Amino acid sequence: MKNVIVFALLLFITSCSENVGPSSNKNYSDEIFQYSSKNALINHDYVGNLTVAEIKKNGNFGVGTFNMVDGEMVISENNVYQVLPSGEVNNMSADVKSPFVVTKFFEADTTFAISDVSLDSLKTMLNPILHNLATPFAIRIAGKYKTLKSRSVDKAANESVSLEEIIANQTIFDFTNVEGKLIGFWFPEYFDGVNFAEYHLHALLNNFSGGGHILDCHFDGAVVEIDFASGVIVEL
Amino acid sequence: MKNVIVFALLLFITSCSENVGPSSNKNYSDEIFQYSSKNALINHDYVGNLTVAEIKKNGNFGVGTFNMVDGEMVISENNVYQVLPSGEVNNMSADVKSPFVVTKFFEADTTFAISDVSLDSLKTMLNPILHNLATPFAIRIAGKYKTLKSRSVDKAANESVSLEEIIANQTIFDFTNVEGKLIGFWFPEYFDGVNFAEYHLHALLNNFSGGGHILDCHFDGAVVEIDFASGVIVEL
Repeated sequence: MKNVIVFALLLFITSCSENVGPSSNKNYSDEIFQYSSKNALINHDYVGNLTVAEIKKNGNFGVGTFNMVDGEMVISENNVYQVLPSGEVNNMSADVKSPFVVTKFFEADTTFAISDVSLDSLKTMLNPILHNLATPFAIRIAGKYKTLKSRSVDKAANESVSLEEIIANQTIFDFTNVEGKLIGFWFPEYFDGVNFAEYHLHALLNNFSGGGHILDCHFDGAVVEIDFASGVIVEL
Repeated sequence: MKNVIVFALLLFITSCSENVGPSSNKNYSDEIFQYSSKNALINHDYVGNLTVAEIKKNGNFGVGTFNMVDGEMVISENNVYQVLPSGEVNNMSADVKSPFVVTKFFEADTTFAISDVSLDSLKTMLNPILHNLATPFAIRIAGKYKTLKSRSVDKAANESVSLEEIIANQTIFDFTNVEGKLIGFWFPEYFDGVNFAEYHLHALLNNFSGGGHILDCHFDGAVVEIDFASGVIVEL
């Protein structure tokens, strides 16, 4: 029953940008998988039991963090990376654990090119349609960036530290003229609390030269891929 | 990581009521399955594609409605029943469709007896613990009722009719000295929008003599079974 809106979005994208072709081979689950919730993180629930090995069984693409909020997680092409406040990017081993993950087997439903635009401009372009969309989606944007502002956070000393305190102590990266991917999700407002409403994007720069939770960026030519989800599996 | 709270709840129940023993044989999925969302119903999305046959694949217990909000749905022991405003209870055929369902393969984690108490008193007894619970649960209460107030609704004439208008036109049933089951779910507040926060209970009286969406009741001896969910699968 929600296909009308998705179809309208596909038409809109086709009509206003260069469509380089959607993929259609759905070999995997089309649901977004999430472990725990935004609600749990807000309530200082920083210790989970989901291992990197289990994350890979539930998706090859996504965002999250590690136990005690130990840096930003980026899941790309079936690897689970940690971006630390030092800027270091680590490919994590199978037994490392996470308290919060959002992942999917990514297969683009629609693909289009963007040129010299800000992240806010891209969001504004999509807003009129997304305003009525009831279905979350995964989004991957690969290309060049004139500027990219991201952050990572220090591991919490203990579970009495709030998420606000962790973020207040964030390390901000200001990159210029870099290449890489933005990886993340968009959830409708009515999912807020279960997940994060609107966009949640993490970056992974080429050659693992940096990344982190996206605060802002300006594209210098990129390809946007959107993968509409058929549902959400929430493990609590 | 949420097991501490669940364990505390089990201890509480054991200490304040007659525990007639939890079942432990988990043959099925322990997730709640839901089709569509509260958000979709609020937005007049009354036509779905989920058939009764598909509902039965995803659970043997639950609540919901039929396309165009055609009465109240109660799923019990792998049958899908419709309670109409006439009071009639129908066992629905495999091809009938629904726009919204919440279901589970029910296996009680804890079971306890209650005597002469109101539904509100039962909720008050459970509130101090549920206040901090982050995990939804299924709840089944079988027994006798001194009073039971429920309702059903007329099928919407079209999709421009709001959910408020449908409910404003509800038919209320006032039963006294009846036997039957309450079937439903409790979701934490942070799920509101995705599902309905707090309790959502439908009744199915013995001999299919009535039922519907519960507005109030007073128990005259019943057994309460709670089945904590490990997560929620949301199909959109």
